[in-house]
Amino acid sequence: MQKLIEGVHYFQNIGFRQQKELFERLAAGQSPEACFITCSDSRIDPTLITNAKPGQLFIVRNAGNVIPCYGTQNNGELAAVEFAVGVLGVKDIIVCGHTHCGAMKGVLHPESLSALPTLKSWLSHCDATAEIIRDHYGHLSGEELYTATAEENVLVQMEHLRTLPVIASRASRGLINLHGWMYKFETGEVFVYDSAIGQFEKIGEDNGLGIK
Amino acid sequence: MQKLIEGVHYFQNIGFRQQKELFERLAAGQSPEACFITCSDSRIDPTLITNAKPGQLFIVRNAGNVIPCYGTQNNGELAAVEFAVGVLGVKDIIVCGHTHCGAMKGVLHPESLSALPTLKSWLSHCDATAEIIRDHYGHLSGEELYTATAEENVLVQMEHLRTLPVIASRASRGLINLHGWMYKFETGEVFVYDSAIGQFEKIGEDNGLGIK
Amino acid sequence: MQKLIEGVHYFQNIGFRQQKELFERLAAGQSPEACFITCSDSRIDPTLITNAKPGQLFIVRNAGNVIPCYGTQNNGELAAVEFAVGVLGVKDIIVCGHTHCGAMKGVLHPESLSALPTLKSWLSHCDATAEIIRDHYGHLSGEELYTATAEENVLVQMEHLRTLPVIASRASRGLINLHGWMYKFETGEVFVYDSAIGQFEKIGEDNGLGIK
Amino acid sequence: MQKLIEGVHYFQNIGFRQQKELFERLAAGQSPEACFITCSDSRIDPTLITNAKPGQLFIVRNAGNVIPCYGTQNNGELAAVEFAVGVLGVKDIIVCGHTHCGAMKGVLHPESLSALPTLKSWLSHCDATAEIIRDHYGHLSGEELYTATAEENVLVQMEHLRTLPVIASRASRGLINLHGWMYKFETGEVFVYDSAIGQFEKIGEDNGLGIK
Amino acid sequence: MQKLIEGVHYFQNIGFRQQKELFERLAAGQSPEACFITCSDSRIDPTLITNAKPGQLFIVRNAGNVIPCYGTQNNGELAAVEFAVGVLGVKDIIVCGHTHCGAMKGVLHPESLSALPTLKSWLSHCDATAEIIRDHYGHLSGEELYTATAEENVLVQMEHLRTLPVIASRASRGLINLHGWMYKFETGEVFVYDSAIGQFEKIGEDNGLGIK
Amino acid sequence: MQKLIEGVHYFQNIGFRQQKELFERLAAGQSPEACFITCSDSRIDPTLITNAKPGQLFIVRNAGNVIPCYGTQNNGELAAVEFAVGVLGVKDIIVCGHTHCGAMKGVLHPESLSALPTLKSWLSHCDATAEIIRDHYGHLSGEELYTATAEENVLVQMEHLRTLPVIASRASRGLINLHGWMYKFETGEVFVYDSAIGQFEKIGEDNGLGIK
Ligand SMILES: [Zn+2]
Ligand SMILES: [Zn+2]
Ligand SMILES: [Zn+2]
Ligand SMILES: [Zn+2]
Ligand SMILES: [Zn+2]
Ligand SMILES: [Zn+2]
Repeated sequence: MQKLIEGVHYFQNIGFRQQKELFERLAAGQSPEACFITCSDSRIDPTLITNAKPGQLFIVRNAGNVIPCYGTQNNGELAAVEFAVGVLGVKDIIVCGHTHCGAMKGVLHPESLSALPTLKSWLSHCDATAEIIRDHYGHLSGEELYTATAEENVLVQMEHLRTLPVIASRASRGLINLHGWMYKFETGEVFVYDSAIGQFEKIGEDNGLGIK
Repeated sequence: MQKLIEGVHYFQNIGFRQQKELFERLAAGQSPEACFITCSDSRIDPTLITNAKPGQLFIVRNAGNVIPCYGTQNNGELAAVEFAVGVLGVKDIIVCGHTHCGAMKGVLHPESLSALPTLKSWLSHCDATAEIIRDHYGHLSGEELYTATAEENVLVQMEHLRTLPVIASRASRGLINLHGWMYKFETGEVFVYDSAIGQFEKIGEDNGLGIK
Repeated sequence: MQKLIEGVHYFQNIGFRQQKELFERLAAGQSPEACFITCSDSRIDPTLITNAKPGQLFIVRNAGNVIPCYGTQNNGELAAVEFAVGVLGVKDIIVCGHTHCGAMKGVLHPESLSALPTLKSWLSHCDATAEIIRDHYGHLSGEELYTATAEENVLVQMEHLRTLPVIASRASRGLINLHGWMYKFETGEVFVYDSAIGQFEKIGEDNGLGIK
Repeated sequence: MQKLIEGVHYFQNIGFRQQKELFERLAAGQSPEACFITCSDSRIDPTLITNAKPGQLFIVRNAGNVIPCYGTQNNGELAAVEFAVGVLGVKDIIVCGHTHCGAMKGVLHPESLSALPTLKSWLSHCDATAEIIRDHYGHLSGEELYTATAEENVLVQMEHLRTLPVIASRASRGLINLHGWMYKFETGEVFVYDSAIGQFEKIGEDNGLGIK
Repeated sequence: MQKLIEGVHYFQNIGFRQQKELFERLAAGQSPEACFITCSDSRIDPTLITNAKPGQLFIVRNAGNVIPCYGTQNNGELAAVEFAVGVLGVKDIIVCGHTHCGAMKGVLHPESLSALPTLKSWLSHCDATAEIIRDHYGHLSGEELYTATAEENVLVQMEHLRTLPVIASRASRGLINLHGWMYKFETGEVFVYDSAIGQFEKIGEDNGLGIK
Repeated sequence: MQKLIEGVHYFQNIGFRQQKELFERLAAGQSPEACFITCSDSRIDPTLITNAKPGQLFIVRNAGNVIPCYGTQNNGELAAVEFAVGVLGVKDIIVCGHTHCGAMKGVLHPESLSALPTLKSWLSHCDATAEIIRDHYGHLSGEELYTATAEENVLVQMEHLRTLPVIASRASRGLINLHGWMYKFETGEVFVYDSAIGQFEKIGEDNGLGIK
């Protein structure tokens, strides 16, 4: 914790001052551009990869960037999205997976989760991901397989997101846009799912939003 | 989304390169120092306020930094903590609330949540917070009241966190430390709960960890 | 019950004999062509409207042809589909709504369900339908509105169906086909949803399957 | 699907016209004589075995004609019965099992359900059936055993049905009648449970309703 | 607490010694004669009214002597019965209600429970009791009504008890007996339900067990 | 049952008369001093060990004196406490475990519960107890181990009790007191947890309440 406390000192003395007026303005309220749902993995920093300032991203994070379907109990993910859309007027939601995701290893190897029953139960919301991998990705292995798993999982969780009533009503009519991203932190590349071609494409200079 | 896409370009071209070797090393695995649980509010950036680098913080975020008790279904918060502690060997968990939290307004005014049923249901995990405020804070109002609510909520959620078996077993014996923080983003101040005096104290140069 | 008992006599003496060999063959096992999910409404008879023989349709029926999402407890609808697909090898699933559906009235007027708490709770799986109607169908009323509600509900429930892992894995790859139908029993017309044009079209001589 | 589409054509051109006036009258509302709860099995056709016309039977169908007890979540079966009794004024409810029921095989051999987790979970509502068979039917095997299982299951599910408040209040006072049926589709025989003798008796010319 | 502590002193010094050998023998194990399920009400003492010694009664107590149906989550009541029957070999289960039961007032007046949400939710397992009273007891009021409610509730909870698989299997075959009792503590009378006449009869010298 | 019926006769003829006036006064209402939560074990008699009279103890009993956390469904334990505190004005709550507890054996040996699935599921609320024993009590065995398990379980369940909003609000401020007791029935000793020294101490003449 020592490093973190020193980091707080740095922020309070130097970091905060660099954005002081922004923070003072934000006291009046937040108006983020997007809701960003990603994994809890420490190697992911949403504001770093989007170069976002405080106030720009409403962020939800859990193990595996999982979104349980509507109708399941204690659904914090959909509760946060309901708030972002209904109160903050957010119109873009990004579901971002990543390479080397430990949760994806748990999804493919549930037998490794016997000492982690709460996590095992949580990853049942990735059963569709596991089934897709089992049925269609028998030809992959190692990191390639885990990356494919993370990609398919992003698409599965986006389908789960669509079961929230306000999303069901607005996404298919273009009033809200869902974006599927993959972050390959070891190279800094960010990919967006292009439903027209059915693949994740790198966000380069020429393409922009990957609207599904 | 345009600004975010431009941000990704910036990251891919410039931002990533600044930390390229760190990211390449991180591909081998993550070894975060702490698990940081905070609100989804766009005005909070855990790595900014702790000046943390990628790989340092395992982050969980939802509306209201809520942690449902053990035994409730679909518990993503406790699943993530179970993973952080059991697999990543994390020994410090920070639960961080903040000023101007919209979720706290929902907790105090459930009647304002009638159009947000999923959020209303989610905030039932803050019923203890509402009860404490109702019983003991009748003398406060406005932002003072919301700040007190956010503070009491941090303490309530820390108690919920203790119901996870691995935390129940290790926290009271000092093998895992729980820290209650409050972030006042409009001034950049970060406070830590000091159980010895029963109050949140600013993290200044002289004090360090607020160990409970 | 008297009429029904007489009906059983008729079946035992006459009706059964007309299909005796078929029933004897069916004792060896069932190999239905499709799984048909529709409302419990007494005015709907799936085998009548498809002129199907015993053994052709695996049928699931409940109030409102509702399919709760994957991950919800006690999910009999997805359990039946899992069986139909996994054991009986069914490759086509029809979700069929109908005009004059009492459940749709309950969806639009939840205040009318106060004496029917179990039904009210069940219809929470149609919250997306209610939201869609609220947002986009303010211009309709009466039977037109109820028909639109039944149509949108068929599409919503088909999305819920896609959350079952085996369907998530096979439907988008064309290995399993989902069909959205609407039955207007007062005219005998059956409509199928054509996703290419975004409308329900009558099943006439010229078009056939409405594959989504 | 081709056969089913052709069947729809037949219905629209010929089948519907045979009952056109009935259907037109039914547009005003339904007034079924009974609620019929049976298995999704394709070899069962409730209207065929009771020679019923559209509008006579309010039908609920799922794998194993299971009725989860009151108090369990997402209870579509009891929701449909609550509607049938409370809104449609139905006074007779038939729970009908059948021979060669695949769900009964799953009940007796849960180890065969490892690839069908949703179905396995659903069949936990037949745990009482499995216990009864385990305790009292050790002397049976093969089809005899499966038939006994289907029979005991009908009785178990009828007990579950009695836990719905409106049934608990009216069935024991004779205001609503519950009937337990067994359908042996390979011979066309239909049996009704006679509680006075504790056995299923064939519905013949001389006996009528099997009132429990 | 002072009186209770003094009571413990009395027990340790005097009360225990009166039954010392019995307690020492009981260290080897318990072999109770019956499982007694009753209300938490402080005016009820099962061992007092049956003059039972330690080791004779396995006791379950909660607000309203409620037994949620099988299939509901976190079912402590059925868990305790499963243990009593399966491990301790208990063959008699008594469900005992009482006069002046506060829980019954909550059942008849749910509007009085708005400040007690956990209790209100718990008493949903008495919905059948409320329905029976609403339908058939409009002619009663005051204590007579509350007593009738407690009586009907005992019968309802006994039906819920029958949904536990081991009870479903053995009770109807006479291997386990369920007894419905009512305790009128202000007069010391204990009544047992006699299903043959459909009424609660006082346990006098001449009648004995009320076997259903 | 014969002995119990004879016991009822004794109570009605003799036992009741000894406390007749007390019972008649109690008809007006109950005002217990404490809420006593303990195991269903037949060898425990709360009124015997505290020498309490009818009206003094509001008693909750289940297998293992378990208290599921707030937010779990069908929570009868917290419902009873909510009633005791909110309606009866109780200010002291005792959670009492005991030696030779069969539920504790189930907690340490879940493999022995395969034929008792409802109990096994119920004891998941003791997962924290199992974890504590696994981590810190490897040096114990036999009855010593089971006693330590029962002791740790009392402390775990007291933490669960604190998650009930009214307790969360009042216990830490001393308005409600929680007491952890252990009853060693074979010697008659009763121990109370003293948080100051972190141990269970015998309730002797010199110490009194064990306030936590
Ligand atoms: Zn990850
Ligand atoms: Zn917030
Ligand atoms: Zn309908
Ligand atoms: Zn079947
Ligand atoms: Zn009571
Ligand atoms: Zn015990």
